[in-house]
Amino acid sequence: MTFGHVTVATDGAARAGVLRTAHGAVETPVFMPVGTAGTVKAMTADQVRSTGAGIVLGNTYHLMLRPGADRVERLGGLHRFMDWPGPILTDSGGFQVMSLSGLRKMDEGGVTFRSHLDGTQHRLTPEVATGLQHQLDSTITMVLDECTPFPATHDQARTSMELSMRWAARSRAAFVARPGYAQFGIVQGGVYPDLRARSLEALLAIGFEGYAVGGLAVGEGQGTMLGVLDATVPLLPGDRPRYLMGVGTPDDLVAAVQRGVDMFDCVMPTRAGRTARAYTSRGVLNMRNARHMDDGGPVDPACGCTACTRHSRAYLHHLFRAKEILGPMLLTQHNVTYYQSLMRGLRGAILGGGLVDHAAGVRAAWAAGDSV
Amino acid sequence: MTFGHVTVATDGAARAGVLRTAHGAVETPVFMPVGTAGTVKAMTADQVRSTGAGIVLGNTYHLMLRPGADRVERLGGLHRFMDWPGPILTDSGGFQVMSLSGLRKMDEGGVTFRSHLDGTQHRLTPEVATGLQHQLDSTITMVLDECTPFPATHDQARTSMELSMRWAARSRAAFVARPGYAQFGIVQGGVYPDLRARSLEALLAIGFEGYAVGGLAVGEGQGTMLGVLDATVPLLPGDRPRYLMGVGTPDDLVAAVQRGVDMFDCVMPTRAGRTARAYTSRGVLNMRNARHMDDGGPVDPACGCTACTRHSRAYLHHLFRAKEILGPMLLTQHNVTYYQSLMRGLRGAILGGGLVDHAAGVRAAWAAGDSV
Repeated sequence: MTFGHVTVATDGAARAGVLRTAHGAVETPVFMPVGTAGTVKAMTADQVRSTGAGIVLGNTYHLMLRPGADRVERLGGLHRFMDWPGPILTDSGGFQVMSLSGLRKMDEGGVTFRSHLDGTQHRLTPEVATGLQHQLDSTITMVLDECTPFPATHDQARTSMELSMRWAARSRAAFVARPGYAQFGIVQGGVYPDLRARSLEALLAIGFEGYAVGGLAVGEGQGTMLGVLDATVPLLPGDRPRYLMGVGTPDDLVAAVQRGVDMFDCVMPTRAGRTARAYTSRGVLNMRNARHMDDGGPVDPACGCTACTRHSRAYLHHLFRAKEILGPMLLTQHNVTYYQSLMRGLRGAILGGGLVDHAAGVRAAWAAGDSV
Repeated sequence: MTFGHVTVATDGAARAGVLRTAHGAVETPVFMPVGTAGTVKAMTADQVRSTGAGIVLGNTYHLMLRPGADRVERLGGLHRFMDWPGPILTDSGGFQVMSLSGLRKMDEGGVTFRSHLDGTQHRLTPEVATGLQHQLDSTITMVLDECTPFPATHDQARTSMELSMRWAARSRAAFVARPGYAQFGIVQGGVYPDLRARSLEALLAIGFEGYAVGGLAVGEGQGTMLGVLDATVPLLPGDRPRYLMGVGTPDDLVAAVQRGVDMFDCVMPTRAGRTARAYTSRGVLNMRNARHMDDGGPVDPACGCTACTRHSRAYLHHLFRAKEILGPMLLTQHNVTYYQSLMRGLRGAILGGGLVDHAAGVRAAWAAGDSV
C-alpha cells in the first residue's frame, strides 16, 4: 500500500479525493476528531466511527508524558491501544510544549521543558519527536516546528520559520519510511506571504508525502487566515494532501475547503460538546440556555445522531444542568457527527460541481437559524 | 397487558420467571441499573440495552426537583425523555429525602424538606409521591415509606413500620391502576422478624402487584440482612414479584437469589464504574492500581463488553489516571454488563436445576481471582 492522495474531482480550487494509507483509505476533504490522550474525549471508538469519521488525531506531547510512547509501543501501538485500526495522524508535540508545559528553553537543537503533569524535565528535538511518533505507530507523522507567536514582526517570523525549516530537514532525516505511512512538512511564516512561499520552497526541496499549513487560527482572525491560504495553497503541490492545522469553526472549514484544503483537525466540536455548545445546521446553540428547558424538539432536526434522533433539547438541557456525564457524551457525539456531515456535504457538492451554491446554502441556513 | 410475574422454574427457594409489564417483559431474577436523574450515569440508553438490561430504576426525589415531574410529563414521560421504552421502576423519593435533603420535618401526613439543590421547600406525602410517579409514567411505582434508621430498637422499628403501613394504605388509595402498570408495597420492620411479618400482613391486607423488602443494606451487615430475608421471603406471596431494594454486591445478589428474590437495584456497578472499581468474574479490581499500567490483558477475560473485548487493563488504567471521561464510560458499561451476566448465569442455573453448584463456582472464581 503506497501512501497518497488522489483527487477525484475539483470545483474551483476545491478538491474531492481519497487519502490512501497503511491503515485504510479516507475520503477528502476530511475532518479529523482530536484524540488528545488516546481517546476522542467522551466518545468510545465505536461512537467515533458511527459519526462517519475515518481518521483521528493524537497528541504526541500528551502521550509522551502519559502513558508514555514507549509504553504505547509495548502495548502494540496507538491503534490497538485506543481501538482505532484506521489511520491516525499525530502532531509533533511542539505546539503543546509551547501552550501547556512550564519552564521552556529553546535552542537550535530543540526545546527543553517541564511536564505540566509532574514537573519532570523532558527534551523534544526533531529526532525525538519523530521517534516518539514512530513508537506510537502513527500513520501520518508531523515534523517538529517552532510555533511562531502571533503577532510577530517579519523578522521574528522569518527567524522562527528558518529554524522550523532546519528542524524539518532533521525530522525528515529521522523519519523511517514504511509503505502506507507518511510524514508531512509544515509551512510556516506567519502572516507574511513571502515567508510562506520561502518556507514551502524549503519543504519541497526536502520532499514530504504531504504538506500542512501551520501557525494559523492563533488570533489573527478569519480574514487574515484566509488571506494566507489564498497566497499559500495555490503553491502547494497538487498531487499531495494539504492539511490546515488546528482549524476550525464550521465556517472556517467551508472557506478553507473552497480554497483547496483537504484535511482539518480541531478540538472545537469535542470541547464544545463538553461545554454545552452545539454546532448545528442552523447555527450554534448553548444547551444550558433556559429556552431549551421545555423544548421537545431535537438539537438539530437535520442530524442523525443519537442526541438528535432519540432525545429532546429539553433532555440535553437537563443533563447539562444536572452535570450528568451523558450530556458531554451525547453532545460531543452530535458535534462530531455534525462536522462529519458538513464535510460529507462539501465533498458531495465538489463531486457534483455545485460547491459555491452549496456553501452559500450552508451559510444561509446558519444565518437563518436559531442560534442562542 | 396484565402486569404480573410468572415463575417458570424453581431451584430450592430460588425462582426464574418472567415479569410482564405495559412496557415489555423482562426475565427474572433481574438487576435494574439505577438511572437516578433520567440517565444511567455515563451510559447512553443504547449502551444500557447492550448490557442486556431490560428494566431501569428512576429516582423520584431527583426527578421531582430537576427537571420536575410535571416537566417530564409534559415532555411525554420518563420513557421518552431518557429513550427507555422498556419498563421503569421508580422509588417513592422517601429514601433520598432522608439521605440528601436538608431541614426535614416528619409528621403523620408526610415529610417536609428543603431541596439539596437550591434550598426550596417541598413536601412529600403518600399521595404526592404516588402522583409524581404517575406523572413520570413509571411502570412500577413504590409506596412512600419511612426509612427506619439503623440501628433502631424494637420500639423505634415498630413505630416507624406502623407509620409506613398507614402510608402504604394511603399510597394505594392514590394509585391509579392501568393495565400493565403496578404498585409495590414495601415490607419494613428493621432487623426484627416479628415486625417484618406484621408489616407484610398489613401490606397483604391492602394488596399490591408486588412486594419489596426495604430498609436493608443500611449498615446491618450481610449476615443480618440474609437473616431478615430467611425470615421474610418465605412469607411473601409466591405469585407476586419480590424486590430487594438497594442491594447489592455481586455476593449479596447470589445469596438473595438463592433465597427467592426476583428483583434488585443498586448504584454499586455504576458508582464503581466512575471510581475505577471493576466487578469481574474473578473479583474486584481497582483500575488505578499501578499493577495494571503495563497489562495488555482485558479487565475480565470472561466479559463481552467493549472495555473487555477492545481494550486492555493498561488502557483503562491510563484513562482513569488521565481523568478521561471514557474511563467512567467504559468501566460503567463493563460493571453493568457484569451484573447482567451474573444474573443471566443465575437464571440459567435455576432453569437447569444447578443453582447451588453454580453459585459455589461463581464464589470460587471470585476467591481464586486477582482482586487488588
